[in-house]
Amino acid sequence: MQPLTSPRRGAADPCHLKHRLFDTRQLSLDLARPLSAEDMVVQAMEDASPTKWHLAHVTWFFETFVLSKFSQGYRVFDERFGFCFNSYYESQGARHPRPRRGLLTRPPIEDVFAYREHVDTALADLLGDDEALDGDAARLIEIGINHEQQHQELLLTDVLALFAVSPLRPAYRSPAPRAVAAASTGVLRWIDFGGGVHPAGHEGDGFAWDNERPRHETLIHPFRFADGLVTNGEWLEFIEDGGYNNAMLWLADGWATVKREGWLAPGYWENVDGAWHSMTLAGFGPVDPAAPVAHVSYFEADAFARWSGKRLPTEFEWEFAARDVALAGNDLGTGALRPLPVDDTADASALPRQMFGDVWEWTQSAYLPYPGYRVPEGAIGEYNGKFMVSQHVLRGASCVTPSGHTRRTYRNFFYPHQRWQFAGVRLAADANP
Amino acid sequence: MQPLTSPRRGAADPCHLKHRLFDTRQLSLDLARPLSAEDMVVQAMEDASPTKWHLAHVTWFFETFVLSKFSQGYRVFDERFGFCFNSYYESQGARHPRPRRGLLTRPPIEDVFAYREHVDTALADLLGDDEALDGDAARLIEIGINHEQQHQELLLTDVLALFAVSPLRPAYRSPAPRAVAAASTGVLRWIDFGGGVHPAGHEGDGFAWDNERPRHETLIHPFRFADGLVTNGEWLEFIEDGGYNNAMLWLADGWATVKREGWLAPGYWENVDGAWHSMTLAGFGPVDPAAPVAHVSYFEADAFARWSGKRLPTEFEWEFAARDVALAGNDLGTGALRPLPVDDTADASALPRQMFGDVWEWTQSAYLPYPGYRVPEGAIGEYNGKFMVSQHVLRGASCVTPSGHTRRTYRNFFYPHQRWQFAGVRLAADANP
Amino acid sequence: MQPLTSPRRGAADPCHLKHRLFDTRQLSLDLARPLSAEDMVVQAMEDASPTKWHLAHVTWFFETFVLSKFSQGYRVFDERFGFCFNSYYESQGARHPRPRRGLLTRPPIEDVFAYREHVDTALADLLGDDEALDGDAARLIEIGINHEQQHQELLLTDVLALFAVSPLRPAYRSPAPRAVAAASTGVLRWIDFGGGVHPAGHEGDGFAWDNERPRHETLIHPFRFADGLVTNGEWLEFIEDGGYNNAMLWLADGWATVKREGWLAPGYWENVDGAWHSMTLAGFGPVDPAAPVAHVSYFEADAFARWSGKRLPTEFEWEFAARDVALAGNDLGTGALRPLPVDDTADASALPRQMFGDVWEWTQSAYLPYPGYRVPEGAIGEYNGKFMVSQHVLRGASCVTPSGHTRRTYRNFFYPHQRWQFAGVRLAADANP
Amino acid sequence: MQPLTSPRRGAADPCHLKHRLFDTRQLSLDLARPLSAEDMVVQAMEDASPTKWHLAHVTWFFETFVLSKFSQGYRVFDERFGFCFNSYYESQGARHPRPRRGLLTRPPIEDVFAYREHVDTALADLLGDDEALDGDAARLIEIGINHEQQHQELLLTDVLALFAVSPLRPAYRSPAPRAVAAASTGVLRWIDFGGGVHPAGHEGDGFAWDNERPRHETLIHPFRFADGLVTNGEWLEFIEDGGYNNAMLWLADGWATVKREGWLAPGYWENVDGAWHSMTLAGFGPVDPAAPVAHVSYFEADAFARWSGKRLPTEFEWEFAARDVALAGNDLGTGALRPLPVDDTADASALPRQMFGDVWEWTQSAYLPYPGYRVPEGAIGEYNGKFMVSQHVLRGASCVTPSGHTRRTYRNFFYPHQRWQFAGVRLAADANP
Repeated sequence: MQPLTSPRRGAADPCHLKHRLFDTRQLSLDLARPLSAEDMVVQAMEDASPTKWHLAHVTWFFETFVLSKFSQGYRVFDERFGFCFNSYYESQGARHPRPRRGLLTRPPIEDVFAYREHVDTALADLLGDDEALDGDAARLIEIGINHEQQHQELLLTDVLALFAVSPLRPAYRSPAPRAVAAASTGVLRWIDFGGGVHPAGHEGDGFAWDNERPRHETLIHPFRFADGLVTNGEWLEFIEDGGYNNAMLWLADGWATVKREGWLAPGYWENVDGAWHSMTLAGFGPVDPAAPVAHVSYFEADAFARWSGKRLPTEFEWEFAARDVALAGNDLGTGALRPLPVDDTADASALPRQMFGDVWEWTQSAYLPYPGYRVPEGAIGEYNGKFMVSQHVLRGASCVTPSGHTRRTYRNFFYPHQRWQFAGVRLAADANP
Repeated sequence: MQPLTSPRRGAADPCHLKHRLFDTRQLSLDLARPLSAEDMVVQAMEDASPTKWHLAHVTWFFETFVLSKFSQGYRVFDERFGFCFNSYYESQGARHPRPRRGLLTRPPIEDVFAYREHVDTALADLLGDDEALDGDAARLIEIGINHEQQHQELLLTDVLALFAVSPLRPAYRSPAPRAVAAASTGVLRWIDFGGGVHPAGHEGDGFAWDNERPRHETLIHPFRFADGLVTNGEWLEFIEDGGYNNAMLWLADGWATVKREGWLAPGYWENVDGAWHSMTLAGFGPVDPAAPVAHVSYFEADAFARWSGKRLPTEFEWEFAARDVALAGNDLGTGALRPLPVDDTADASALPRQMFGDVWEWTQSAYLPYPGYRVPEGAIGEYNGKFMVSQHVLRGASCVTPSGHTRRTYRNFFYPHQRWQFAGVRLAADANP
Repeated sequence: MQPLTSPRRGAADPCHLKHRLFDTRQLSLDLARPLSAEDMVVQAMEDASPTKWHLAHVTWFFETFVLSKFSQGYRVFDERFGFCFNSYYESQGARHPRPRRGLLTRPPIEDVFAYREHVDTALADLLGDDEALDGDAARLIEIGINHEQQHQELLLTDVLALFAVSPLRPAYRSPAPRAVAAASTGVLRWIDFGGGVHPAGHEGDGFAWDNERPRHETLIHPFRFADGLVTNGEWLEFIEDGGYNNAMLWLADGWATVKREGWLAPGYWENVDGAWHSMTLAGFGPVDPAAPVAHVSYFEADAFARWSGKRLPTEFEWEFAARDVALAGNDLGTGALRPLPVDDTADASALPRQMFGDVWEWTQSAYLPYPGYRVPEGAIGEYNGKFMVSQHVLRGASCVTPSGHTRRTYRNFFYPHQRWQFAGVRLAADANP
Repeated sequence: MQPLTSPRRGAADPCHLKHRLFDTRQLSLDLARPLSAEDMVVQAMEDASPTKWHLAHVTWFFETFVLSKFSQGYRVFDERFGFCFNSYYESQGARHPRPRRGLLTRPPIEDVFAYREHVDTALADLLGDDEALDGDAARLIEIGINHEQQHQELLLTDVLALFAVSPLRPAYRSPAPRAVAAASTGVLRWIDFGGGVHPAGHEGDGFAWDNERPRHETLIHPFRFADGLVTNGEWLEFIEDGGYNNAMLWLADGWATVKREGWLAPGYWENVDGAWHSMTLAGFGPVDPAAPVAHVSYFEADAFARWSGKRLPTEFEWEFAARDVALAGNDLGTGALRPLPVDDTADASALPRQMFGDVWEWTQSAYLPYPGYRVPEGAIGEYNGKFMVSQHVLRGASCVTPSGHTRRTYRNFFYPHQRWQFAGVRLAADANP
C-alpha cells in the first residue's frame, strides 16, 4: 500500500509537530469560547454538527487512532465515548446516528473539556520522547491535526447555521471594523492560460490527504480564468434578471431544487423591505455588494455561470492557475470571518487573486479518484475514498479555513445542493480560438 | 358566553391564590434543578419540548394573558419572546415552529430565569392589592397556574424522552428507595356498577377547564370496572402470548403502526439478553412486574383489552366509578416519579384503587365536545376546543401530575399512537346480563 | 356471539335473495360499461382502487366466504387471485399491497369478467336448490350483496377521482338534462326535536352491518336540525368571507391540513377566471349554487359549522331525526350522479329533507363501538370493528349509493381529512333554552 | 454555435432517411404488439413511463419539433396532447407531471395510434418532395429517429419494471430457445492498452448527440481491460462472500442505499428456497450463471469492482478500447431480449467482446460536459446538457437497444442508485507498473 501521508521530514522534527499539534488543539478551544454550553450542544440540521460534538470527535480521533495504538498503557477516558463521537468509521463499530448528534446533552460540556485535557496530556507524553516517536504515530498525529482543522472550519460553519435559524439571530462575534475599501473598478479581468499535459496532485513529503494523490499527468485545454471571485453585486444582477425564475439557466436537478426549496437568493439571504440582507457570523445585516458571494450551491454556481455566458473551471484548471499563487488570503487567520472585497488598490499582477481564502470555489469536476488512487488501509481508509460519488470538488479555502491548512492540491467536496458552506464562484471560459 | 372558569370563592381569597401561584412558580424551578443548561435546551422529538421552552412559555402565558391586560404600566420583558415562546395561539401572531423549539440556544437559560423573576415580581405587585384584583385577572391567574402545572408534567415527560435517546441513559433523579411491597395477590377484583342517567362534567365554583363543561346528563349502561391498573407482569404475558405479532388483536391503524415502528413492547422497553428493561426517570433497569404498565399507546391498550376479553372503559364510566374515590394517589407529590405497585396490604374497599396517580388511563371515548360546549371567547378559547378530533380521552392522573391538579372530571387527551406520556390501562367490561 | 346479520326471513325466501344477488351482480357490470379497459386498471391515488380491482374483489369475496365454504366441489377460478384481490383480511393471508392495486395490468379485464361469470354460475347453482340453502350461506350471500353495493359506490367515487386528475377531464356519463329548479327560497328551516332516552341502532331481522348493533338506549338532548343540506351557494359565502384563511374557525389538525394541502375550496373545485368550477361525473363545469356542497372533509364541515354559529349533529340526533323519514332520495337509482337542489315546490312537511341521497352527512360522532358491541367471529369480523378509531361517522346516503342499500341506522365512516367521497354537511344546533 | 448534429450527407439522401424513419416508427408498434391496452397505460414507478406515453411522446416530438416548424399547413392532431406528452421541455410550456404519467387513461390507446398515423402521414408528405426538404428538417427528423430509438429501449425496460411488480409475473414474450452454450472456460482474459493522448468524442457527418461532442484530446494512462462482462456466476460469489453485508466495500452513499432499500442481490432477483431466480422479459426463472449480470446500480458495480481488487473503466478508456471493435452484438436485433453468455467457441481475438449489446456498462466517469461543449440552441438544447450532474456515464449498448443506434462514442447516463436499466459491469485495472 502506498503511504497515505509521508511527513517524513516532519517526523524528523517532532518539536515542530508538537508545536502545531497543541496550537491546533488550543485553537478549537478558542473558537468555542464565544459560545455557551447551550450553543454548543444543539444541532442546527442534519448536515451540521454541534460544537460539543466537534470538540469531542476530534479528540476521539486522536484517542482511537493515535493513543490507543501508540501510547503504552493509555487509559481510554470513557468507554462510552466511542459510541457517542465516532462519525462514520464503520470499522470502529456502532455509533450514535448523525441526525441525532444534537441529543447528546450528556456527557456535559465540562466532561468534553476534561476529555480534551486527558487526551492532550497523553499526547504530550507520547510526543515528549522525540526519539521514541514512531514514524506511523507522527504520521497519524499529522492526520489528526489536519482532521481537527477541518472540524474547526465546520464548527464555525455549523454555528452560523445554528444562529441563522434562531429567531434572535445572534452574532458569533461582533464584526471587526472594516477598512473602507477603495471603490472597486468593477472590471473583471481575465487571465489566459495555455494548455498541455501538466501534473496535478500532491507530491513530496509534506502532508496531503490521500485524495490528492497520486500526482499524475493531466491534459489541460487552453482556458481563461477570472482573476477574482463573483461578487454579491453581480449576484444581485443575476437575481434581478430573473435568474431564479428561468428554468433554461439551470441543470434539471438544480431547477427541481429551486422549486422545492423555494430558493430566491443565496443561503442566509433575506429580503427586508426590498433590500437584501444576510445572516453572517457577525449577525444580520445588509449584503455588501463588493464582497464575494457565499453560500451558493453548485446548482446556483452553474446557473450563474451559464447566465454569464461563461462556465466553472475544472479542478485541474484551477490547480494549474494556482501554481504560482502564494498560499495566503482571507482565511481564518485574518479574523474577518467573512468574505472580503478584493483590494483594488493593490498592484494588479498577472496572477489570480482571492484564491486561498474568502470562499471555497465550486469546480465543474466531479469528486472522483485520481488515476492510480488506492484507498489507504486501515480505518483512515474511510476518510475520503468512500465519498467519491455524486459530489463536486471545491478548490481554494474560505474565510473560516485555519491558516496553514491550505494547499494548491487541496480537494474539498460537497453535494451539488448544499450551501451551508462558505462556497462561492470563480468563472472560467474556453480560450478564444 | 359561559364563563370558562369561575373561581369566585378563590377570587374572594386572593391570598390563597397568591400562595398557590408562587408555590406553582417555585415548583417549576425545583423540577429544573437536576438539569444542566444543555439538558434544558434540547428537544427530544417533535412531540416534546425543551425544559427551557416550558419554563419560558408558561411565563409568557402570564405576561400575555394577565400582566399585559391587567397590570398597568407593565413593561414587556423582551418583545422578541412572544415569537419564541408562543405555543399555538394563532390569535397571538406568528411564532417559532414547534419542531424547532430545540434550536433556541438563545435567549440563554439565565435570561429565561430573569424573565421568570421579572414576571413574578409583576404578578406579586398585581396580587398585592387584594381589593383591586379584578375577577377576570384572578380567573386568568388561576388558568395560568393550571397551565403551568400541565407543563410541569410535560417537562418531566419530555425529560424522560430526552434521556431515553441519550446513549448514556442518564437518570433524572436517583430512585427513592422503595419500601418492599407486600406480594401482590395477583387477583384482579372487579367492581360492579349499575347504569342509569347520571351527570358528568364539572359544576360549581372550583376551577375546571372549559372542556369539562357544561355538566350534562349522560346515560350509562351497567358495567364492571377493574379495581386496579394493568401491571407490567400482565403485559409480559401479552407479549409472550404473541400480542405484538397477532394482527387479529389490533385496530387496523394500530397494526400498521406496530409494523411501521417495529413495536415489540411498551415505550422505553428494551430487551437485554432476554430480560425486559426500561428507561425511567431513575435511569435504566429491569421492569418491575408488579408496577402498572406505562408508556403504552391507545392502540396497545385496545389490543391488550381485546386479548383479555375485556374492553377499555368510557370516560363517563370512569367518572362515575370515581365519584366516591378520594383525590389522592401516587402523583408528583409522592416523589416516586414512577408508577408503583398497588399496596395489597391496605384494606380493600369497594372503591377502585390507583385512580389519581401512577398513570393516565386510556378510555375508549374520543375527545369531543360535551353537549352545549362553547369555545370560550378570546385567546384562551384556543386552549382545548381546537384539539377535539382524532384523539382519545385519558382520565385520572400520573406519577408526574402535580398534586392539586387532579379532578374527577379532568379530561386529558392524546393521539392513539402516542406513548411518550405516562399512560396505562384499566380494564372494564359489560355487566353480566 | 351475537349473529352479525340475521336475514332469517330473507333466508326463508331464497328467490328474493337470488333476485337481489343477481341484480346486484349485474349492476356492477352496468356501472363499468362506460369505462375502457384502461380506465378500469388505473388507481387514482392510494385511497382509491381501480374499477377492475373492485369488480374482482367483490367476486373474490363471494368465492372465499360463500362458495369455498358452502358449495361442494367448487373449483377456485385461479389460485393466484386471492393474493391479488384480498383487500385487508389478515386472516385470509398475504395480499397485494393497497397502494399498488393499480399495477395489476394482469389478469386482464377479460379474465375478471370470466371470473365473475364463473362465480355467478356457481352461486346460481348453490342458490338453485332452495331447501339445501343453509342459513349461514344465505346470511353470507346477503353480506356479499351489501359488500358489493358498497364497492359500487366506491367504484364511482374512485372513477371521479381518476378522471379529475386526467388533463382531459373526461365525463363518466353525459349529464342528464336537469329540469329547471324552481328558485330556492334560500330560507333554511329548522326543525326542533325534544330530548330523552331513545333507542339507536338496528334491531330485527333485516340485514344490517355489525357496527349498527346492538340496538341500545341513547340519551339525546333537545336539538334543532336543519331541514336541508348546506348548498354550494352557502359555501361560496364561506369562501368569500375568508373561511379558508381564518385559523380561528378550524380544528388545529384541520388548519394544518388546509395549509399543507393548500385547500381553498371543496375537493374538485377549481377557479377559472374568477368563477368556481368543479369536476363531476358529468365532466367539468360551473358550480351550481343551489346544489348541496360535496367533497368536503370533516375539517371543512366543522369549520363551516363554526362559521355559521351552528354545529354538526351527532349520529344519534341524526338517527332520531330520521326515524319517520322515508328511505328515498337522490341515490344511484335516480341516475343523476350528482347532488341535486332541493325541490322547493314540494309541500314542506315537518320532516327533514335530502336525508337519503345527494351526499353523506358528516356527524360530530367519532366512529366507535356501540355499548355491547362484539367483533363477529371469523373473517367477516374484520369488516368493521378494526376501523373504529380516528374516523367520524357519516349518515344518510349519497347520489352514488345503490338504491336499497340505505338504512336509518347505517354508519358510514371516513377519516377527517378525506374528501374524495360524496360527503356534505347538514347543520344542527342546541335547542334554545 | 456548433451544429448539434450534422447529417449533411444524410440530408442529401432523403430516401435513406425516410426508410429509417418509417422503419423506426414501425418498430415501436411492433414492440407494443404483445401488450394489452391495460399493460400500456400503467406506470410501474416514477422512473418508468407507460408504453402508451412512450408511443405518444415520440410522436409529439416529431409534431412539435419537425411538423409544426417545417410542414406548411400542418394541423396539430389534438391541442391537449402537448400538455399530456411533453416530457421535460421547459421551453414548450406546462406539462403533465412525470410521476402521474400512469393516470392518463385518456386519451385512449386507439387515439394514440391514430395520432401516430396522423403524424406519420404528415411526415411522409414532408419527406416526399426530396428537393424541398430543408437541411434543418432532415436534421431534426434524424434526431427524432434517434429519440424514438431511445424510447424503444425504455419502453422494454419499463415493461419489465411493470411486469416485475405484478403478482402474476407475466412474460413479455416467451423465451427464444437458447442454443446450448459451450461451457465457459471461466477464465477472464485481460487486454493491455497503452496510454497517451487520444481523441475522444464524435466527429464527422454521421448523427451523434450533442453530448458526444466536441471531439477533443484526452489523456489516457496505461490500463488493462477485461475482455468480457461480469457474469451472474461471479456475482453469486460476491453475494456468498457477504458482499452486500460488508460496509467496507461500498461507497458511503451506496451503503446507505443498500441498508435503506434492503438490497441483497441485483434488481429483479429473488431467492426461492435457496436458489436465486430473476424476473426477465421472458418471465420468472432461475438465474443463468454464465450470462452477464444485469440490473445493478453504480453503487453495486463499484462495490463489486472493489471486492475484485479491480476498478471500473473510465469512459475514455472504454472508448479507446472500443476503437477497433465492430458495432455488433446482442442488441434488440437478435431478439434474445436478455443478456447472453459469451460464445467461448468463437476464436478469441485481441479485441474485447460483448461491447455493443447485452448490458450497458457503468464507467467511473461522471456525466459532465466535454471541453468546449455548448448547449445547442432551441428546445433541443434541453435534451442532454441539463442532466450533466450527479450521474455516471454508461457505455456500449444493451439487449434492448435498437440495432443501428449504437456508436463507440455514445454516452448513456443514469444516477448511481438506479438499476431498472439493463446495466452491468466490465472490470478494468491500472497497468502493471
